[in-house]
Amino acid sequence: MGIKEIVNSTKIYWLTSDGPERDVVVSSRVRIARNLADIPFPGVMSDADAESIFHAVKLAVAKRNDIEFTWLRELSDAEREILMEKHLISPDLLENHEKKAVMLSEDETISIMLNEEDHLRIQSLLPGLQLERAWNLVNELDDLLEETLGYAFCEQLGYLTSCPTNVGTGLRASAMLHLPALNIINQINSIMSTVSKLRLAVRGLYGEGSEAKGNLYQVSNQITLGHTEEEILKNLNSVIKQIIDKERKARKALYEEQRYYLEDRVFRAYGTLKYARLLTSNESMNLISDVKLGANLKIIDVDPNVLNELMIITRPSYLTKYAGKKLDSHKRDILRAELVRSKLKNLN
Amino acid sequence: MGIKEIVNSTKIYWLTSDGPERDVVVSSRVRIARNLADIPFPGVMSDADAESIFHAVKLAVAKRNDIEFTWLRELSDAEREILMEKHLISPDLLENHEKKAVMLSEDETISIMLNEEDHLRIQSLLPGLQLERAWNLVNELDDLLEETLGYAFCEQLGYLTSCPTNVGTGLRASAMLHLPALNIINQINSIMSTVSKLRLAVRGLYGEGSEAKGNLYQVSNQITLGHTEEEILKNLNSVIKQIIDKERKARKALYEEQRYYLEDRVFRAYGTLKYARLLTSNESMNLISDVKLGANLKIIDVDPNVLNELMIITRPSYLTKYAGKKLDSHKRDILRAELVRSKLKNLN
Repeated sequence: MGIKEIVNSTKIYWLTSDGPERDVVVSSRVRIARNLADIPFPGVMSDADAESIFHAVKLAVAKRNDIEFTWLRELSDAEREILMEKHLISPDLLENHEKKAVMLSEDETISIMLNEEDHLRIQSLLPGLQLERAWNLVNELDDLLEETLGYAFCEQLGYLTSCPTNVGTGLRASAMLHLPALNIINQINSIMSTVSKLRLAVRGLYGEGSEAKGNLYQVSNQITLGHTEEEILKNLNSVIKQIIDKERKARKALYEEQRYYLEDRVFRAYGTLKYARLLTSNESMNLISDVKLGANLKIIDVDPNVLNELMIITRPSYLTKYAGKKLDSHKRDILRAELVRSKLKNLN
Repeated sequence: MGIKEIVNSTKIYWLTSDGPERDVVVSSRVRIARNLADIPFPGVMSDADAESIFHAVKLAVAKRNDIEFTWLRELSDAEREILMEKHLISPDLLENHEKKAVMLSEDETISIMLNEEDHLRIQSLLPGLQLERAWNLVNELDDLLEETLGYAFCEQLGYLTSCPTNVGTGLRASAMLHLPALNIINQINSIMSTVSKLRLAVRGLYGEGSEAKGNLYQVSNQITLGHTEEEILKNLNSVIKQIIDKERKARKALYEEQRYYLEDRVFRAYGTLKYARLLTSNESMNLISDVKLGANLKIIDVDPNVLNELMIITRPSYLTKYAGKKLDSHKRDILRAELVRSKLKNLN
């Protein structure tokens, strides 16, 4: 699948495919930061420096014919935003995109961002809890690149990066968790504060500084230095397994102890999605979250893939793309409600 | 239709039949208070006094074979409450009902309450704005009764009543108005305060002291003395016509200026009624009110009779009757939502 098709499709590999622990874990992401030794960091690089990065990386990746190179300036603003909302590129790649590019594997599992904060950001994004597999995909590609690229590396510190928080392994691993029940029973804050004390970071859907919408939380490692990649992943994985366990127990308890309250909440959310004429982005995320929880507990029979697709088509960038022009927020709310209704119309 | 059938039916003549100005005026009610000259008022009467009232009134009404006499103690608590919620008897008749009785016409348009606050309360309740016709029905029956009963009457004051606020004509006329648009645009309070200054009373659905639920307001005369019945009715009618006009203008303006907001509100209400698993009495009244407004503006296609029936079957007394036993409020909320869903299931 070429990048244009990826942009045009409302199917998203990591969101609409199956994976382990999929009832709680939406996706797993691993990315590493790498820089070439002899070229200044992107923040201070010249146009010629950027060109040499493109050239060197293209050559190094050439053995992998499933990875396509794309200049970001070849894409429209709307298309870039869609890639961002699909989490295939970072928000950073939207800014000053003239010196930046992305390489995307055909199956959408691997992306290499060029000249983001670092020369290379190699990312793998998979459905469900698959941190180890994501790491292996990234690691293999890293090994391939290292054969020909001269990475900036220091025996004492490890890989050197533009921002000191990435120095060492250059590794950031995260999982996106859907935690509606912990939110309903008001345990989410205490759990997340415990998670923070374990030197893990908790964030909303779109990374740093973004709010947790639709009960989606990203948990990631903060430490990149002084531990091996395997240790970092093992620690993160074990904390996530504990959160999964807590969320499942909360769902079960809610269902057993407050069944009518829960059924009411789930079906009201469904009724509102099915009938509303105005839907804000936040409200629709929260309603979809409630219906997802219901589908999960078999309270309501809605195809999870339809719900996942709703999460995408209700995003502002998709609405802009669908309308073919920028819409004000009122018009977006109308169109969002219209699209949601039409998706749900043909169900049961 | 006998009183037992009236109790058992969810059809209510004044609520489910058509009438003038039915888009705003749900019903019109006229009642007069009368007392027999030689018997103490109900508050201080003996059992024998009560018996003589029953006897005298029965005899006087005998020429009308469409009016059935019922001892309130023959009915169960639940049945009496249903008559009250159908507005065929007053809340007062539920208390100390041993000395009280009711006579109900077959078509449900006329009821005579015996030994409520006064010996006789003759009431007519009709769909839409029909104060004059209601008055005529009451007046004719009053004339018939006056042929044989010796009413307590004073040349100077008029008819004497247990409470001084009824002395004179003994007349209380009211209309129940559905005013959702005036409520949405926040004009309801200023209009109702103007109405009060015109010496009319504004009340909720169940008379004095009751809250306005589901945007239903009762407007009635306060003055019974110093004006003829015709003057009282003419004044009330003219104020009601002005309120109708304001409500219709508000609906039109809302539809023209805030169409999406209004459609959203109406369809969300419908979606919630259709899917909720828990519904309180207040919430269901308000949701039904929103859908009624929508049906009225042709935003949504729902049979008004179904909505009117919903207003009845969601009342606590109906739920108790349906369940065959007293339910706690949580169980009532479950049953209410269940009944509403089953009524709306077969629509479109």
